[in-house]
Amino acid sequence: MSLRPTLEFLLYQWLQAETLQQRPRFADHSRETFDAVLGTCERIAREKYAPFNRTVDTQEPHFDGEKVILPACTHDAQKAYAESGMLSAAQDYDIGGMQLPYTVEAAANSFFGLASVSIGSGLLTVGNANLLMAHGTELQKQVFALNEFSGRFSGTMCLSEPQAGSSLSDIATRAVPDGADYASDPLGPRYRLKGNKMWISAGEHELTENIIHLVLAKIPGPDGKLVPGTKGISLFIVPKKLVDTEGKLTGVRNDVALAGLNHKLGWRGTTNTLLNFGEGKYPVGGEAGAVGYLVGQPGKGLACMFHMMNEARIGVGMAATMLGLAGYYASLDYAKNRPQGRPVQGPKDGAAAVVKDAEKPPVRIIEHADVKRMLLAQKAYGEGALALNLYCARLVDEMHTGDAAAADEARLLLEVLTPIAKSWPSEWCLEANSLAIQVHGGYGYTRDFAVEQYWRDNRLNMIHEGTHGIQAMDLLGRKVLMENGRGLTLLAGRINATVQRALQVPRLAAQANALAGALQQVGAATKAAWATGQPAEALANAVPYMQAFGHTVLAWVWLDVALATLGQDEATAQPASQGRLGAAQYFFHYELPKIGAWLQVVSQRDPTCADFPEEAF
Amino acid sequence: MSLRPTLEFLLYQWLQAETLQQRPRFADHSRETFDAVLGTCERIAREKYAPFNRTVDTQEPHFDGEKVILPACTHDAQKAYAESGMLSAAQDYDIGGMQLPYTVEAAANSFFGLASVSIGSGLLTVGNANLLMAHGTELQKQVFALNEFSGRFSGTMCLSEPQAGSSLSDIATRAVPDGADYASDPLGPRYRLKGNKMWISAGEHELTENIIHLVLAKIPGPDGKLVPGTKGISLFIVPKKLVDTEGKLTGVRNDVALAGLNHKLGWRGTTNTLLNFGEGKYPVGGEAGAVGYLVGQPGKGLACMFHMMNEARIGVGMAATMLGLAGYYASLDYAKNRPQGRPVQGPKDGAAAVVKDAEKPPVRIIEHADVKRMLLAQKAYGEGALALNLYCARLVDEMHTGDAAAADEARLLLEVLTPIAKSWPSEWCLEANSLAIQVHGGYGYTRDFAVEQYWRDNRLNMIHEGTHGIQAMDLLGRKVLMENGRGLTLLAGRINATVQRALQVPRLAAQANALAGALQQVGAATKAAWATGQPAEALANAVPYMQAFGHTVLAWVWLDVALATLGQDEATAQPASQGRLGAAQYFFHYELPKIGAWLQVVSQRDPTCADFPEEAF
Repeated sequence: MSLRPTLEFLLYQWLQAETLQQRPRFADHSRETFDAVLGTCERIAREKYAPFNRTVDTQEPHFDGEKVILPACTHDAQKAYAESGMLSAAQDYDIGGMQLPYTVEAAANSFFGLASVSIGSGLLTVGNANLLMAHGTELQKQVFALNEFSGRFSGTMCLSEPQAGSSLSDIATRAVPDGADYASDPLGPRYRLKGNKMWISAGEHELTENIIHLVLAKIPGPDGKLVPGTKGISLFIVPKKLVDTEGKLTGVRNDVALAGLNHKLGWRGTTNTLLNFGEGKYPVGGEAGAVGYLVGQPGKGLACMFHMMNEARIGVGMAATMLGLAGYYASLDYAKNRPQGRPVQGPKDGAAAVVKDAEKPPVRIIEHADVKRMLLAQKAYGEGALALNLYCARLVDEMHTGDAAAADEARLLLEVLTPIAKSWPSEWCLEANSLAIQVHGGYGYTRDFAVEQYWRDNRLNMIHEGTHGIQAMDLLGRKVLMENGRGLTLLAGRINATVQRALQVPRLAAQANALAGALQQVGAATKAAWATGQPAEALANAVPYMQAFGHTVLAWVWLDVALATLGQDEATAQPASQGRLGAAQYFFHYELPKIGAWLQVVSQRDPTCADFPEEAF
Repeated sequence: MSLRPTLEFLLYQWLQAETLQQRPRFADHSRETFDAVLGTCERIAREKYAPFNRTVDTQEPHFDGEKVILPACTHDAQKAYAESGMLSAAQDYDIGGMQLPYTVEAAANSFFGLASVSIGSGLLTVGNANLLMAHGTELQKQVFALNEFSGRFSGTMCLSEPQAGSSLSDIATRAVPDGADYASDPLGPRYRLKGNKMWISAGEHELTENIIHLVLAKIPGPDGKLVPGTKGISLFIVPKKLVDTEGKLTGVRNDVALAGLNHKLGWRGTTNTLLNFGEGKYPVGGEAGAVGYLVGQPGKGLACMFHMMNEARIGVGMAATMLGLAGYYASLDYAKNRPQGRPVQGPKDGAAAVVKDAEKPPVRIIEHADVKRMLLAQKAYGEGALALNLYCARLVDEMHTGDAAAADEARLLLEVLTPIAKSWPSEWCLEANSLAIQVHGGYGYTRDFAVEQYWRDNRLNMIHEGTHGIQAMDLLGRKVLMENGRGLTLLAGRINATVQRALQVPRLAAQANALAGALQQVGAATKAAWATGQPAEALANAVPYMQAFGHTVLAWVWLDVALATLGQDEATAQPASQGRLGAAQYFFHYELPKIGAWLQVVSQRDPTCADFPEEAF
């Protein structure tokens, strides 16, 4: 069992990734170049990541008073990843990139998530640099972004603050102009920042020569006060060590200090920090305040940052997915090799009693129906989530390289699908990991097997980059409404197209009808939720709405994958094809019917929770 | 927020525990004596357990080459618990017991599970001693059971073996008569045991003077072979240190050796071991083989052990429940004190857009509807599970002290409800713990807060004392069929009685109808599952069946609790009453509708999983 054949099926048979080479940007590519990238990443992940997944869990980052210490394997993995060129895989040839489609980049990066999700594959660094490529000045790109793509520097995103959490409108980090000449700094208008940033991943380490923080902060108005809400937020580049216009370190440490490491339940390969900006520990020119360079326009920082956050959300979805698949593969392997118990047999004398023949040797546990159920659920969750995330990646390529109409459609579909791509794997691939533990029985509860770590690592994904609740508010409160509901209409169009094709295939017709019914239910629930136009009523059950929406999207993905499977000549006789058709069937029989319970409270704008008095808890 | 008022409501208003004093065995008891026991346990748990819950997680048991080392707090907690008299609370006065009803004992013990589930409250020791009281000889009771009740000795149950796991029919531990006079040992027929036992909780430690292992093993036939299946299994008392007929240590160590400690994901306050019996490390009289004394008849060991396993299963359900409530209380406290974000408001100009007023200060997160949803779910899971477990405890009292007909009914109802009392809290209070993490956001993912430990600790409960899959097979393959389905009929009768009463109460009528419908669906699914009489078909979806069965039972429990709440004069105006009615409403609106999806595959005897070919995974 390996990931590669599944990836290749999804990329080439389902998403037709090879057709991307018809586009000028990807003209030099072919299946051969794509496969070469996949092969390289698969090998690096196998050699430099997989053997050390437990090491990074047990050798948690620690601060020795001067430096954050990480195990040697993390340094090695980081180096190998940077040397592979994957940090700049999607960039233009003229800055050293490969002009690789994002679809293939995402597929290739999946090997690292599978092997060791928390060592990190440069997701934040690439997102940080991509943001600068989109919103930075020429010099900001050269000095910061290009050095991130090369692996010389790494990047962070600094949004949350201890007192504000997910509520960005309440951030209190202040940025004031740094001297009279502040506006004329070649690296961008120069400010001094003061404030605290919480939950900063990779916020402090010695893996790279420098760390480039992208920091949200507010520039006080003439009265010295911060503008309430998100509209006062600006974005700054705050390097850990100051650099000159050629990107060389000046030898001056910026005023960014580690205030503490967070000790986490899992995901321990990545340092997570509380950083103090401008507290005066490392004064620059004798003065407290972290030096930062404005990116884009003042007050437009959040819009720039969202550029990065959407990629980060797809990245989180992919990470959750790969943990789900890692647990699936581990428990499948265990189930194939562990002998225990005997299957139930028919009654011996017509009595409806369960009989087992103790004279026979035990069977391997994969022969038990309930173990198969737990494996098939994991397969349906993990491979379904992988398909969804690759579909979203394909939309990113369409948005960047499709014609105007297709690009606009892709943009809008991505708006609607991003909350699902992030939330659905976070919830259901976590459930998959719990099932992987269950397949192992008591052994799965010990640290001698990998599955308990997958489960712990995966619990993060419903929290970071916007919690489940925030994704749900985004979906029902914003995405399905935006542009007069055009995003939802577009998605419904794609789902209906799949339904129509599947209705022509006898063995998929029942699933097609079930999906059509589910889509109708989701549409009706969306209308009912907003029937009174009151956000407090509509959004009280936003999470159950997102759960039902997500299950419907996944049913669509599985039906479309089933169609692609049947489209292959002679394919249905192959085990892999039987596997995909069986997983699709599992999803339609066991999972999709769950949407009824979730949508009921949405449709009725059920006030049970919202109206529950605090003192009654 | 504290557990005490909830316990008192369930005990006195709902289960009418005070009426037990009308029975001769409990004639000296009253609400005052019950409350005194609750108060003592609440205090010991607060002083000796709660402060050390993180300590036992971080200071895992370790073996120094000679002894298993546990932190001092574990010794202190164990001592305080033994001194409280709770180990013998249920026993007769003449052996030093309190003749406390099991209902009150279970309620009192819940404080320890809430404070620190894995330090242990003597569950195994009491179960072990209870088994000997039921099946042992007079001397076995005196020498072993009474010293366990006093806290001088502790007990284990040794069932699993590394190669057999849950499949007891495959155990390979052998017991052979020990010398010519083996049958005349005053402590019971004396055997020598050889074999390995896995997953033995509290299998090695220095907390007590001695450890009394109850061990399942097979006595070879005349041909030297073991009888296949469970019918060849006998039960033995195997003390860690040999004792004389007065229970004094003889100074001779028995041949039971620690082969290894299991390093677990959670539940680290309890040592979990692999034990080697009779490998010759501690030869007795120069000979390898652990000395064991037969309990009951040869070949009847499993029946004796099941006496202990049913209590253990209710104990597991209660442990899972208390972890669920611990997370609920912790996240409720956090939500009441953490300011973050603002509730959504109505649209400003009729546009269906979400507006928040950033000028206003942030609210505490308990004011957000989705946080309330997550808290209410935890309350419904945790308090519902507590009610179910106390209901089962009340059935145990009925079985022991009711008239013959009532006792028989109670026995049969317990048979049907035990798999639910064990599995339902294990699944849903684990989900509650995940929600408790989610309420905390990023903080919940750190080890600075308690909730991540609750979640890890609780993951064990779906595994030990019979996995989820085994409980489901027991329920659908045995319990609903036994005595021609009389157990299921009895349960349906009780559920219908609640429905009839609730139909008379206007505000509960809709819930009553929903419960009646659910019961009908479960009954129909039970019949459909067995329609072909083929266990392999019926049991392929045993877990979804158990999930639906469990949710139906919990809906019944909540409706009955709601009736008791409304039965109190003026009670509905009180916050606690509003809370119970709201939690019941939550359960009926958000949870009970889930059964449709689970029962669909059961009713159709869906073969998707069972028929899935191994090579297609």
